[in-house]
Amino acid sequence: MIERYRRDGFLLLPPEYLTQTVFDTITAAVPHLLAEDSPRRIMERDETTVRSVYGVHQTDSIMAEVPRMPALLGAARQILGDDVYVHQSKINLKAPFAGDQWEWHQDYIYWLQSDGLRKPDLVNVAIFLDEVTEFNGPLTFVKASHRSGLLTRIGADGMPLGYEDAPAWVATLTADEKFQVGTSVVEEMARANGLVSPKGPAGSMLFFDPNILHASAPNISPFRRAMLMYVFNGVRNVPRDVSDPRPPFLAEPDTTPLQPLFSVSDSK
Amino acid sequence: MIERYRRDGFLLLPPEYLTQTVFDTITAAVPHLLAEDSPRRIMERDETTVRSVYGVHQTDSIMAEVPRMPALLGAARQILGDDVYVHQSKINLKAPFAGDQWEWHQDYIYWLQSDGLRKPDLVNVAIFLDEVTEFNGPLTFVKASHRSGLLTRIGADGMPLGYEDAPAWVATLTADEKFQVGTSVVEEMARANGLVSPKGPAGSMLFFDPNILHASAPNISPFRRAMLMYVFNGVRNVPRDVSDPRPPFLAEPDTTPLQPLFSVSDSK
Repeated sequence: MIERYRRDGFLLLPPEYLTQTVFDTITAAVPHLLAEDSPRRIMERDETTVRSVYGVHQTDSIMAEVPRMPALLGAARQILGDDVYVHQSKINLKAPFAGDQWEWHQDYIYWLQSDGLRKPDLVNVAIFLDEVTEFNGPLTFVKASHRSGLLTRIGADGMPLGYEDAPAWVATLTADEKFQVGTSVVEEMARANGLVSPKGPAGSMLFFDPNILHASAPNISPFRRAMLMYVFNGVRNVPRDVSDPRPPFLAEPDTTPLQPLFSVSDSK
Repeated sequence: MIERYRRDGFLLLPPEYLTQTVFDTITAAVPHLLAEDSPRRIMERDETTVRSVYGVHQTDSIMAEVPRMPALLGAARQILGDDVYVHQSKINLKAPFAGDQWEWHQDYIYWLQSDGLRKPDLVNVAIFLDEVTEFNGPLTFVKASHRSGLLTRIGADGMPLGYEDAPAWVATLTADEKFQVGTSVVEEMARANGLVSPKGPAGSMLFFDPNILHASAPNISPFRRAMLMYVFNGVRNVPRDVSDPRPPFLAEPDTTPLQPLFSVSDSK
């Protein structure tokens, strides 16, 4: 599995890796997180539909425990070869008939430029809260594109184009991505490697590399597509030299390594 | 095949039904039709990307011959049980990274309300000019929804909602559909019957019912999705009682039955 993850840049696990009880516990915690009006909650362009809620591991005890489960924490440690903590968590929603598209981008450039994470030693884990199909705006990857490293356009001053007139941090969370990858790069890599949209039932878990090139279409279907996402960072890669840090709900300041649930340290 | 078409509301044929020579001839005729700046050509919201070109069977001799080929004309006659002619033709494009979405709708309401076609005795034929994949904005059907007839919202006066303040005909050709189907109707039917996006290589032919409920996502991929489309109408269903007819390139006034290519009548 690790070999496939490193080769393709992603790995999809079936729902069996979470038990039904855990999944039910997670889904029961979601509605109140979506309902809370706070800066952590980002709306769609229509200003009425919830797009994302950030920092859920900081505000909800269930959401804090999920990344300590063996299926997540063990995998993240194995992939990163390090102790890990959650740098960012979020619930990403694509509402029926309304969830908007995300342009082609890589995640890592945000964590490098905004949060001072010097290496792409992170891993995304997305838990499908709904079935993901070809119709409800699935994540679409350019296969193996993570192996090309940073593809984002860089300006003459060494900064990504568009970074000079940096908008507020909220702009990094909406559909208009700040760091775009050139369409010719996307085309070339897609022709060479192919596109793939991992799909599966609710409870599936999708691991993906912070440098994999990805996008997603709007949700034109009548079926919601919600995901609970954790970004694990290795403790050797903690934020450095950030003069203007993003809010804690976007970049976790507490870099204490996570301890597994049910471990000996829990009973101390 | 006819049974499947009537049951599902669509039928996808593999490229073998067109010969490679015919397909190559068609594709060679496309660029000049897209290049021509005329009212027949509809642009995307960005005003620079071609979305559709209408009436191609009226302006191009190749495009006039295609619907007379046995694979199209024979099928249309068989489906409609009538002599037929082309009521409308178009090239629909979804440009890479740019092709916009189409909201949920049925086609027939337009032909009924705007063109005075009293019965849904029409059939759409789409020839894939590019490979259609899950990534480039495929047509998405609610299976078997044609069997429920007209699902479009009807106002108290018996007219579809929104028809009273009818915009110019061009509004019927853009992404904001004039006659929308209620989202609760789409959801109910999609839950009952399922969604399907017929996909296949360039040269595939997709027949679909004028009352099948359909939509399509934007094209987020680097690959174009173009289709050549003919709407066949039965000659017993010619336009009637239209006080303000649409332009000929949207509603063909010449209802002479098509004759098959290579038939005896050709050599007269």
